[in-house]
Amino acid sequence: MQIQVGIITISDRASKGLYDDLGGPALKKAAAGYGWTLLADALVPDEKRDIQRAIREHIARGCSLVLTTGGTGVALRDVTPEAVREIALRELPGFGEVMRMESLKITKNAILSRNLAAVVDQALVLCLPGKPSGAVECLGFVVGAIPHCVEVLQEVPTSC
Amino acid sequence: MQIQVGIITISDRASKGLYDDLGGPALKKAAAGYGWTLLADALVPDEKRDIQRAIREHIARGCSLVLTTGGTGVALRDVTPEAVREIALRELPGFGEVMRMESLKITKNAILSRNLAAVVDQALVLCLPGKPSGAVECLGFVVGAIPHCVEVLQEVPTSC
Amino acid sequence: MQIQVGIITISDRASKGLYDDLGGPALKKAAAGYGWTLLADALVPDEKRDIQRAIREHIARGCSLVLTTGGTGVALRDVTPEAVREIALRELPGFGEVMRMESLKITKNAILSRNLAAVVDQALVLCLPGKPSGAVECLGFVVGAIPHCVEVLQEVPTSC
Repeated sequence: MQIQVGIITISDRASKGLYDDLGGPALKKAAAGYGWTLLADALVPDEKRDIQRAIREHIARGCSLVLTTGGTGVALRDVTPEAVREIALRELPGFGEVMRMESLKITKNAILSRNLAAVVDQALVLCLPGKPSGAVECLGFVVGAIPHCVEVLQEVPTSC
Repeated sequence: MQIQVGIITISDRASKGLYDDLGGPALKKAAAGYGWTLLADALVPDEKRDIQRAIREHIARGCSLVLTTGGTGVALRDVTPEAVREIALRELPGFGEVMRMESLKITKNAILSRNLAAVVDQALVLCLPGKPSGAVECLGFVVGAIPHCVEVLQEVPTSC
Repeated sequence: MQIQVGIITISDRASKGLYDDLGGPALKKAAAGYGWTLLADALVPDEKRDIQRAIREHIARGCSLVLTTGGTGVALRDVTPEAVREIALRELPGFGEVMRMESLKITKNAILSRNLAAVVDQALVLCLPGKPSGAVECLGFVVGAIPHCVEVLQEVPTSC
Protein backbone atom coordinates (compact mmCIF):
# COMPACT_ATOMS: atom_id res chain seq x y z
CA MET A 1 0.00 0.00 0.00
CA GLN A 2 1.32 3.39 -1.05
CA ILE A 3 1.11 6.13 1.60
CA GLN A 4 0.88 9.73 0.43
CA VAL A 5 2.23 11.91 3.22
CA GLY A 6 2.10 15.61 3.99
CA ILE A 7 4.48 17.20 6.50
CA ILE A 8 3.72 20.43 8.35
CA THR A 9 6.19 22.28 10.54
CA ILE A 10 4.43 24.37 13.18
CA SER A 11 6.66 27.05 14.66
CA ASP A 12 6.37 30.78 15.19
CA ARG A 13 10.11 31.26 14.95
CA ALA A 14 10.80 29.03 11.97
CA SER A 15 7.88 30.55 10.05
CA LYS A 16 9.41 34.00 10.61
CA GLY A 17 12.78 32.81 9.42
CA LEU A 18 14.36 33.32 12.86
CA TYR A 19 15.18 29.63 13.07
CA ASP A 20 15.87 27.08 10.36
CA ASP A 21 13.15 24.49 10.10
CA LEU A 22 14.89 21.30 11.16
CA GLY A 23 11.81 19.25 12.12
CA GLY A 24 10.31 19.19 8.64
CA PRO A 25 13.48 17.94 6.91
CA ALA A 26 14.03 15.32 9.62
CA LEU A 27 10.51 13.96 9.10
CA LYS A 28 10.89 14.01 5.31
CA LYS A 29 13.98 11.86 5.62
CA ALA A 30 12.18 9.48 7.97
CA ALA A 31 9.13 9.29 5.68
CA ALA A 32 11.34 8.49 2.71
CA GLY A 33 12.97 5.77 4.76
CA TYR A 34 9.54 4.22 5.37
CA GLY A 35 8.87 4.27 1.62
CA TRP A 36 6.16 6.92 1.77
CA THR A 37 5.60 9.48 -1.00
CA LEU A 38 5.89 13.13 0.03
CA LEU A 39 2.98 14.95 -1.55
CA ALA A 40 3.02 18.32 0.22
CA ASP A 41 4.75 20.28 2.93
CA ALA A 42 4.19 23.54 4.78
CA LEU A 43 5.65 25.78 7.44
CA VAL A 44 3.12 27.67 9.58
CA PRO A 45 3.13 29.70 12.80
CA ASP A 46 1.53 28.48 16.05
CA GLU A 47 -1.91 29.75 15.09
CA LYS A 48 -4.91 27.45 15.09
CA ARG A 49 -6.32 28.76 11.80
CA ASP A 50 -3.03 28.38 9.94
CA ILE A 51 -2.58 24.87 11.28
CA GLN A 52 -6.11 23.86 10.35
CA ARG A 53 -5.86 25.37 6.88
CA ALA A 54 -2.57 23.59 6.17
CA ILE A 55 -3.98 20.22 7.29
CA ARG A 56 -7.11 20.63 5.17
CA GLU A 57 -5.05 21.66 2.13
CA HIS A 58 -2.80 18.64 2.50
CA ILE A 59 -5.79 16.31 2.70
CA ALA A 60 -7.43 18.01 -0.28
CA ARG A 61 -4.25 17.36 -2.25
CA GLY A 62 -4.54 13.65 -1.54
CA CYS A 63 -2.51 13.02 1.61
CA SER A 64 -3.80 10.02 3.56
CA LEU A 65 -1.29 10.75 6.34
CA VAL A 66 -0.35 14.18 7.69
CA LEU A 67 2.56 14.54 10.08
CA THR A 68 2.99 17.72 12.07
CA THR A 69 6.03 18.72 14.10
CA GLY A 70 5.78 21.34 16.83
CA GLY A 71 3.23 22.96 19.10
CA THR A 72 2.46 19.95 21.29
CA GLY A 73 4.27 21.18 24.40
CA VAL A 74 3.00 22.75 27.58
CA ALA A 75 3.67 26.41 26.69
CA LEU A 76 0.60 28.52 26.10
CA ARG A 77 1.69 29.23 22.50
CA ASP A 78 1.55 25.50 21.81
CA VAL A 79 -1.88 24.99 20.27
CA THR A 80 -1.46 22.10 17.84
CA PRO A 81 -3.68 19.68 19.82
CA GLU A 82 -6.44 22.26 20.15
CA ALA A 83 -6.24 23.10 16.43
CA VAL A 84 -6.46 19.45 15.41
CA ARG A 85 -9.24 18.56 17.85
CA GLU A 86 -11.47 21.28 16.45
CA ILE A 87 -11.42 19.74 12.96
CA ALA A 88 -11.11 16.06 13.92
CA LEU A 89 -13.80 13.43 13.52
CA ARG A 90 -12.26 11.48 16.36
CA GLU A 91 -9.07 11.01 18.35
CA LEU A 92 -7.04 7.83 18.55
CA PRO A 93 -5.78 7.98 22.14
CA GLY A 94 -3.37 5.07 21.86
CA PHE A 95 -0.91 7.07 19.76
CA GLY A 96 -0.37 9.76 22.38
CA GLU A 97 -0.19 7.19 25.16
CA VAL A 98 2.47 5.12 23.41
CA MET A 99 4.53 8.13 22.32
CA ARG A 100 4.61 9.44 25.90
CA MET A 101 5.27 6.04 27.44
CA GLU A 102 8.18 5.27 25.13
CA SER A 103 9.60 8.80 25.25
CA LEU A 104 9.58 8.61 29.05
CA LYS A 105 12.30 5.99 28.78
CA ILE A 106 14.46 8.70 27.17
CA THR A 107 13.48 11.86 29.06
CA LYS A 108 11.37 12.54 32.16
CA ASN A 109 9.89 15.67 30.57
CA ALA A 110 8.06 13.48 28.03
CA ILE A 111 5.20 13.39 30.50
CA LEU A 112 4.47 16.99 29.46
CA SER A 113 3.99 16.13 25.80
CA ARG A 114 0.56 16.47 24.26
CA ASN A 115 1.35 14.50 21.11
CA LEU A 116 -1.78 13.01 19.59
CA ALA A 117 -3.34 11.34 16.60
CA ALA A 118 -6.72 12.11 15.13
CA VAL A 119 -8.83 11.34 12.10
CA VAL A 120 -9.58 14.37 9.92
CA ASP A 121 -11.86 13.53 6.99
CA GLN A 122 -10.36 10.22 5.84
CA ALA A 123 -6.77 11.02 6.79
CA LEU A 124 -4.68 10.17 9.83
CA VAL A 125 -3.13 13.27 11.40
CA LEU A 126 -0.22 12.56 13.70
CA CYS A 127 1.09 15.43 15.84
CA LEU A 128 4.72 14.99 16.79
CA PRO A 129 6.96 17.14 18.99
CA GLY A 130 8.95 20.06 17.62
CA LYS A 131 12.40 18.77 18.46
CA PRO A 132 13.64 16.96 15.31
CA SER A 133 15.06 13.95 17.12
CA GLY A 134 11.91 13.68 19.25
CA ALA A 135 9.66 13.88 16.20
CA VAL A 136 11.53 11.08 14.42
CA GLU A 137 11.68 8.95 17.56
CA CYS A 138 7.97 9.37 18.29
CA LEU A 139 7.08 8.49 14.70
CA GLY A 140 9.19 5.35 15.08
CA PHE A 141 7.31 4.30 18.26
CA VAL A 142 3.97 4.14 16.42
CA VAL A 143 4.87 3.55 12.77
CA GLY A 144 3.98 -0.14 12.89
CA ALA A 145 0.25 0.58 13.07
CA ILE A 146 0.16 3.41 10.51
CA PRO A 147 -0.27 1.38 7.27
CA HIS A 148 -3.26 -0.54 8.64
CA CYS A 149 -4.81 2.64 10.03
CA VAL A 150 -4.44 4.55 6.76
CA GLU A 151 -5.84 1.58 4.84
CA VAL A 152 -8.94 1.35 7.02
CA LEU A 153 -9.56 5.10 6.82
CA GLN A 154 -9.24 5.18 3.04
CA GLU A 155 -11.79 2.38 2.52
CA VAL A 156 -14.90 3.59 0.79
CA PRO A 157 -17.75 3.22 3.28
CA THR A 158 -20.37 0.74 2.10
CA SER A 159 -23.95 0.44 3.20
CA CYS A 160 -23.18 -2.98 4.64
CA MET B 1 -20.88 -9.44 45.74
CA GLN B 2 -23.14 -10.58 42.92
CA ILE B 3 -22.61 -8.86 39.57
CA GLN B 4 -25.56 -8.67 37.17
CA VAL B 5 -24.16 -8.32 33.69
CA GLY B 6 -25.60 -7.35 30.32
CA ILE B 7 -23.80 -8.13 27.07
CA ILE B 8 -24.33 -6.19 23.85
CA THR B 9 -22.87 -7.14 20.48
CA ILE B 10 -22.48 -4.14 18.20
CA SER B 11 -22.10 -5.10 14.56
CA ASP B 12 -23.80 -4.07 11.33
CA ARG B 13 -23.15 -7.41 9.73
CA ALA B 14 -24.05 -9.66 12.66
CA SER B 15 -27.26 -7.69 13.27
CA LYS B 16 -28.26 -8.32 9.63
CA GLY B 17 -27.52 -12.01 9.95
CA LEU B 18 -24.63 -11.82 7.48
CA TYR B 19 -22.22 -13.00 10.15
CA ASP B 20 -22.74 -15.15 13.21
CA ASP B 21 -22.35 -13.21 16.43
CA LEU B 22 -19.26 -14.75 17.99
CA GLY B 23 -18.30 -11.90 20.33
CA GLY B 24 -21.44 -12.10 22.44
CA PRO B 25 -21.18 -15.85 23.14
CA ALA B 26 -17.46 -15.51 23.92
CA LEU B 27 -18.19 -12.81 26.50
CA LYS B 28 -21.06 -14.81 28.00
CA LYS B 29 -18.73 -17.72 28.57
CA ALA B 30 -16.11 -15.41 30.14
CA ALA B 31 -18.73 -13.74 32.35
CA ALA B 32 -19.98 -17.13 33.56
CA GLY B 33 -16.39 -18.06 34.34
CA TYR B 34 -16.09 -14.96 36.56
CA GLY B 35 -19.26 -16.01 38.41
CA TRP B 36 -21.40 -13.16 37.08
CA THR B 37 -25.13 -13.51 36.36
CA LEU B 38 -26.21 -12.81 32.79
CA LEU B 39 -29.32 -10.65 32.99
CA ALA B 40 -29.75 -9.44 29.42
CA ASP B 41 -28.17 -9.50 26.00
CA ALA B 42 -28.68 -7.74 22.69
CA LEU B 43 -27.38 -7.54 19.14
CA VAL B 44 -27.50 -4.09 17.54
CA PRO B 45 -26.07 -2.40 14.43
CA ASP B 46 -23.33 0.28 14.55
CA GLU B 47 -25.81 3.07 15.13
CA LYS B 48 -25.47 5.43 18.07
CA ARG B 49 -29.17 5.42 18.94
CA ASP B 50 -29.42 1.63 18.93
CA ILE B 51 -26.33 1.32 21.08
CA GLN B 52 -27.56 3.91 23.56
CA ARG B 53 -31.04 2.37 23.76
CA ALA B 54 -29.63 -1.11 24.39
CA ILE B 55 -27.35 0.15 27.17
CA ARG B 56 -30.16 2.05 28.87
CA GLU B 57 -32.50 -0.96 28.65
CA HIS B 58 -29.88 -3.22 30.19
CA ILE B 59 -29.35 -0.81 33.06
CA ALA B 60 -33.11 -0.41 33.55
CA ARG B 61 -33.36 -4.19 33.86
CA GLY B 62 -30.85 -4.16 36.71
CA CYS B 63 -27.44 -4.65 35.13
CA SER B 64 -24.66 -3.09 37.19
CA LEU B 65 -22.13 -3.99 34.49
CA VAL B 66 -22.67 -3.75 30.74
CA LEU B 67 -20.11 -5.24 28.37
CA THR B 68 -20.16 -4.29 24.71
CA THR B 69 -18.19 -5.95 21.92
CA GLY B 70 -17.58 -4.17 18.62
CA GLY B 71 -17.45 -0.68 17.19
CA THR B 72 -14.31 0.54 18.97
CA GLY B 73 -11.99 0.46 15.96
CA VAL B 74 -10.75 3.20 13.70
CA ALA B 75 -13.23 2.73 10.82
CA LEU B 76 -15.75 5.51 10.40
CA ARG B 77 -18.63 3.06 11.02
CA ASP B 78 -17.19 2.35 14.48
CA VAL B 79 -19.16 4.66 16.78
CA THR B 80 -19.35 2.82 20.09
CA PRO B 81 -17.13 5.30 21.99
CA GLU B 82 -19.13 8.27 20.67
CA ALA B 83 -22.43 6.58 21.55
CA VAL B 84 -21.32 5.82 25.10
CA ARG B 85 -19.75 9.21 25.73
CA GLU B 86 -22.99 10.98 24.88
CA ILE B 87 -24.87 9.19 27.67
CA ALA B 88 -22.02 8.81 30.18
CA LEU B 89 -21.71 10.65 33.46
CA ARG B 90 -17.96 10.24 33.28
CA GLU B 91 -15.21 8.22 31.70
CA LEU B 92 -12.70 6.05 33.52
CA PRO B 93 -9.58 6.52 31.37
CA GLY B 94 -7.51 3.84 33.06
CA PHE B 95 -9.51 1.01 31.48
CA GLY B 96 -8.77 2.06 27.91
CA GLU B 97 -5.14 2.77 28.76
CA VAL B 98 -4.57 -0.65 30.31
CA MET B 99 -6.45 -2.53 27.57
CA ARG B 100 -4.34 -0.84 24.89
CA MET B 101 -1.08 -1.25 26.78
CA GLU B 102 -1.60 -4.95 27.43
CA SER B 103 -2.99 -5.66 23.95
CA LEU B 104 0.08 -4.02 22.43
CA LYS B 105 2.10 -6.91 23.79
CA ILE B 106 0.01 -9.14 21.49
CA THR B 107 -0.52 -6.99 18.37
CA LYS B 108 0.90 -3.68 17.19
CA ASN B 109 -2.48 -2.60 15.82
CA ALA B 110 -3.82 -2.40 19.39
CA ILE B 111 -2.69 1.22 19.38
CA LEU B 112 -5.70 1.91 17.12
CA SER B 113 -8.24 0.62 19.61
CA ARG B 114 -10.65 3.04 21.19
CA ASN B 115 -11.81 0.68 23.96
CA LEU B 116 -13.11 2.57 26.95
CA ALA B 117 -15.04 2.41 30.19
CA ALA B 118 -17.61 4.87 31.39
CA VAL B 119 -20.19 5.31 34.10
CA VAL B 120 -23.79 5.46 32.83
CA ASP B 121 -26.31 6.07 35.59
CA GLN B 122 -24.97 3.76 38.31
CA ALA B 123 -23.57 1.12 35.98
CA LEU B 124 -20.10 0.48 34.63
CA VAL B 125 -20.10 0.21 30.82
CA LEU B 126 -17.03 -1.46 29.38
CA CYS B 127 -16.53 -1.28 25.61
CA LEU B 128 -14.46 -4.15 24.26
CA PRO B 129 -13.22 -4.87 20.74
CA GLY B 130 -15.29 -6.83 18.24
CA LYS B 131 -12.91 -9.71 17.72
CA PRO B 132 -14.02 -12.44 20.18
CA SER B 133 -10.53 -13.34 21.38
CA GLY B 134 -9.66 -9.65 21.77
CA ALA B 135 -12.83 -8.96 23.74
CA VAL B 136 -12.15 -11.80 26.17
CA GLU B 137 -8.48 -10.86 26.51
CA CYS B 138 -9.25 -7.18 27.14
CA LEU B 139 -11.83 -8.08 29.76
CA GLY B 140 -9.20 -10.23 31.43
CA PHE B 141 -6.72 -7.32 31.57
CA VAL B 142 -9.07 -5.19 33.67
CA VAL B 143 -11.32 -7.67 35.46
CA GLY B 144 -9.48 -7.33 38.77
CA ALA B 145 -10.87 -3.85 39.41
CA ILE B 146 -14.44 -4.48 38.22
CA PRO B 147 -16.00 -5.82 41.47
CA HIS B 148 -14.79 -2.83 43.51
CA CYS B 149 -15.87 -0.40 40.80
CA VAL B 150 -19.37 -1.88 40.53
CA GLU B 151 -19.68 -1.91 44.33
CA VAL B 152 -18.78 1.79 44.65
CA LEU B 153 -21.15 2.78 41.83
CA GLN B 154 -24.07 0.86 43.34
CA GLU B 155 -23.72 2.50 46.75
CA VAL B 156 -26.67 4.71 47.58
CA PRO B 157 -25.36 8.27 47.79
CA THR B 158 -25.71 9.75 51.27
CA SER B 159 -25.72 13.38 52.26
CA CYS B 160 -22.54 12.81 54.19
CA MET C 1 13.86 27.81 40.62
CA GLN C 2 11.59 28.44 43.59
CA ILE C 3 8.19 26.73 43.47
CA GLN C 4 5.32 28.33 45.38
CA VAL C 5 2.82 25.60 46.16
CA GLY C 6 -0.78 25.55 47.33
CA ILE C 7 -2.36 22.43 48.79
CA ILE C 8 -6.10 21.77 48.79
CA THR C 9 -7.79 18.87 50.55
CA ILE C 10 -11.09 17.94 48.94
CA SER C 11 -13.31 15.87 51.22
CA ASP C 12 -16.91 16.11 52.37
CA ARG C 13 -16.13 14.35 55.61
CA ALA C 14 -12.91 16.14 56.51
CA SER C 15 -14.46 19.51 55.71
CA LYS C 16 -17.27 18.72 58.19
CA GLY C 17 -14.78 17.70 60.85
CA LEU C 18 -15.95 14.06 60.78
CA TYR C 19 -12.49 12.94 59.73
CA ASP C 20 -9.09 14.43 60.33
CA ASP C 21 -7.50 15.77 57.17
CA LEU C 22 -4.52 13.49 56.69
CA GLY C 23 -3.94 14.05 52.96
CA GLY C 24 -3.13 17.74 53.28
CA PRO C 25 -0.47 17.29 55.99
CA ALA C 26 1.07 14.37 54.08
CA LEU C 27 1.41 16.51 50.96
CA LYS C 28 2.81 19.45 52.94
CA LYS C 29 5.54 17.21 54.30
CA ALA C 30 6.30 15.89 50.80
CA ALA C 31 6.33 19.43 49.34
CA ALA C 32 8.75 20.58 52.05
CA GLY C 33 10.94 17.61 51.22
CA TYR C 34 11.09 18.75 47.59
CA GLY C 35 12.15 22.23 48.74
CA TRP C 36 8.94 23.95 47.70
CA THR C 37 7.46 26.91 49.60
CA LEU C 38 3.95 26.40 50.96
CA LEU C 39 2.00 29.56 50.17
CA ALA C 40 -1.59 28.56 50.90
CA ASP C 41 -3.77 25.65 51.92
CA ALA C 42 -7.49 24.90 52.09
CA LEU C 43 -9.98 22.22 53.04
CA VAL C 44 -13.15 22.10 50.94
CA PRO C 45 -16.08 19.71 50.40
CA ASP C 46 -16.60 17.71 47.18
CA GLU C 47 -18.41 20.56 45.47
CA LYS C 48 -17.27 21.87 42.12
CA ARG C 49 -17.72 25.53 43.02
CA ASP C 50 -15.75 25.24 46.24
CA ILE C 51 -12.96 23.39 44.49
CA GLN C 52 -12.78 25.93 41.68
CA ARG C 53 -12.84 28.89 44.07
CA ALA C 54 -10.04 27.41 46.18
CA ILE C 55 -7.86 26.78 43.12
CA ARG C 56 -8.42 30.30 41.77
CA GLU C 57 -7.64 31.84 45.17
CA HIS C 58 -4.43 29.88 45.46
CA ILE C 59 -3.32 31.00 42.01
CA ALA C 60 -4.28 34.62 42.78
CA ARG C 61 -2.04 34.43 45.85
CA GLY C 62 0.91 33.45 43.68
CA CYS C 63 0.98 29.67 43.61
CA SER C 64 2.57 28.32 40.44
CA LEU C 65 1.70 24.77 41.51
CA VAL C 66 -1.54 23.64 43.16
CA LEU C 67 -1.82 20.13 44.55
CA THR C 68 -5.22 18.70 45.40
CA THR C 69 -5.91 15.50 47.32
CA GLY C 70 -9.27 13.75 47.08
CA GLY C 71 -12.26 13.50 44.77
CA THR C 72 -10.57 11.66 41.89
CA GLY C 73 -12.20 8.28 42.48
CA VAL C 74 -15.10 6.57 40.77
CA ALA C 75 -17.83 7.45 43.29
CA LEU C 76 -20.43 9.91 42.05
CA ARG C 77 -19.48 12.39 44.80
CA ASP C 78 -15.95 12.53 43.37
CA VAL C 79 -16.00 15.60 41.14
CA THR C 80 -12.46 16.96 41.26
CA PRO C 81 -11.65 16.17 37.59
CA GLU C 82 -14.89 17.78 36.41
CA ALA C 83 -14.27 20.87 38.58
CA VAL C 84 -10.74 21.32 37.27
CA ARG C 85 -11.63 20.68 33.62
CA GLU C 86 -14.22 23.44 33.67
CA ILE C 87 -11.62 26.08 34.56
CA ALA C 88 -8.59 24.59 32.79
CA LEU C 89 -6.93 26.01 29.70
CA ARG C 90 -5.74 22.54 28.81
CA GLU C 91 -5.05 19.12 30.23
CA LEU C 92 -1.69 17.38 30.34
CA PRO C 93 -2.70 13.75 29.83
CA GLY C 94 0.71 12.24 30.59
CA PHE C 95 0.40 12.94 34.31
CA GLY C 96 -2.76 10.86 34.76
CA GLU C 97 -1.38 8.10 32.54
CA VAL C 98 1.86 7.81 34.49
CA MET C 99 0.18 8.01 37.90
CA ARG C 100 -2.21 5.19 36.94
CA MET C 101 0.47 3.08 35.30
CA GLU C 102 2.83 3.31 38.27
CA SER C 103 0.07 2.92 40.89
CA LEU C 104 -1.09 -0.24 39.12
CA LYS C 105 2.14 -1.85 40.21
CA ILE C 106 0.94 -1.32 43.81
CA THR C 107 -2.83 -1.90 43.58
CA LYS C 108 -5.13 -3.22 40.86
CA ASN C 109 -7.80 -0.65 41.76
CA ALA C 110 -5.51 2.12 40.50
CA ILE C 111 -7.15 1.62 37.12
CA LEU C 112 -10.20 3.39 38.57
CA SER C 113 -8.30 6.56 39.43
CA ARG C 114 -9.10 9.74 37.57
CA ASN C 115 -6.00 11.64 38.71
CA LEU C 116 -5.08 14.39 36.28
CA ALA C 117 -3.03 17.48 35.66
CA ALA C 118 -4.20 20.65 33.98
CA VAL C 119 -3.09 24.18 33.32
CA VAL C 120 -5.23 26.84 35.02
CA ASP C 121 -4.14 30.38 34.16
CA GLN C 122 -0.36 30.05 34.40
CA ALA C 123 -0.33 27.42 37.12
CA LEU C 124 -0.01 23.65 37.05
CA VAL C 125 -2.84 21.95 38.96
CA LEU C 126 -2.16 18.36 39.92
CA CYS C 127 -5.07 16.29 41.24
CA LEU C 128 -3.93 13.46 43.48
CA PRO C 129 -5.93 10.73 45.22
CA GLY C 130 -7.45 11.18 48.65
CA LYS C 131 -5.57 8.43 50.43
CA PRO C 132 -2.50 10.12 52.00
CA SER C 133 -0.02 7.42 51.00
CA GLY C 134 -1.46 7.32 47.47
CA ALA C 135 -1.25 11.09 47.14
CA VAL C 136 2.41 11.16 48.17
CA GLU C 137 3.26 8.17 45.97
CA CYS C 138 1.52 9.64 42.92
CA LEU C 139 3.29 12.96 43.40
CA GLY C 140 6.57 11.07 43.52
CA PHE C 141 5.84 9.33 40.20
CA VAL C 142 5.62 12.63 38.32
CA VAL C 143 7.70 15.07 40.37
CA GLY C 144 10.66 14.93 38.01
CA ALA C 145 8.85 16.92 35.32
CA ILE C 146 7.21 19.49 37.61
CA PRO C 147 10.02 22.11 37.82
CA HIS C 148 10.35 22.35 34.03
CA CYS C 149 6.58 22.47 33.59
CA VAL C 150 6.14 25.25 36.15
CA GLU C 151 9.02 27.18 34.61
CA VAL C 152 7.54 27.04 31.10
CA LEU C 153 4.09 28.07 32.34
CA GLN C 154 5.44 31.03 34.29
CA GLU C 155 7.32 32.43 31.30
CA VAL C 156 5.93 35.74 30.16
CA PRO C 157 4.54 35.18 26.65
CA THR C 158 6.35 37.22 24.03
CA SER C 159 5.21 38.23 20.59
CA CYS C 160 8.03 36.21 19.08
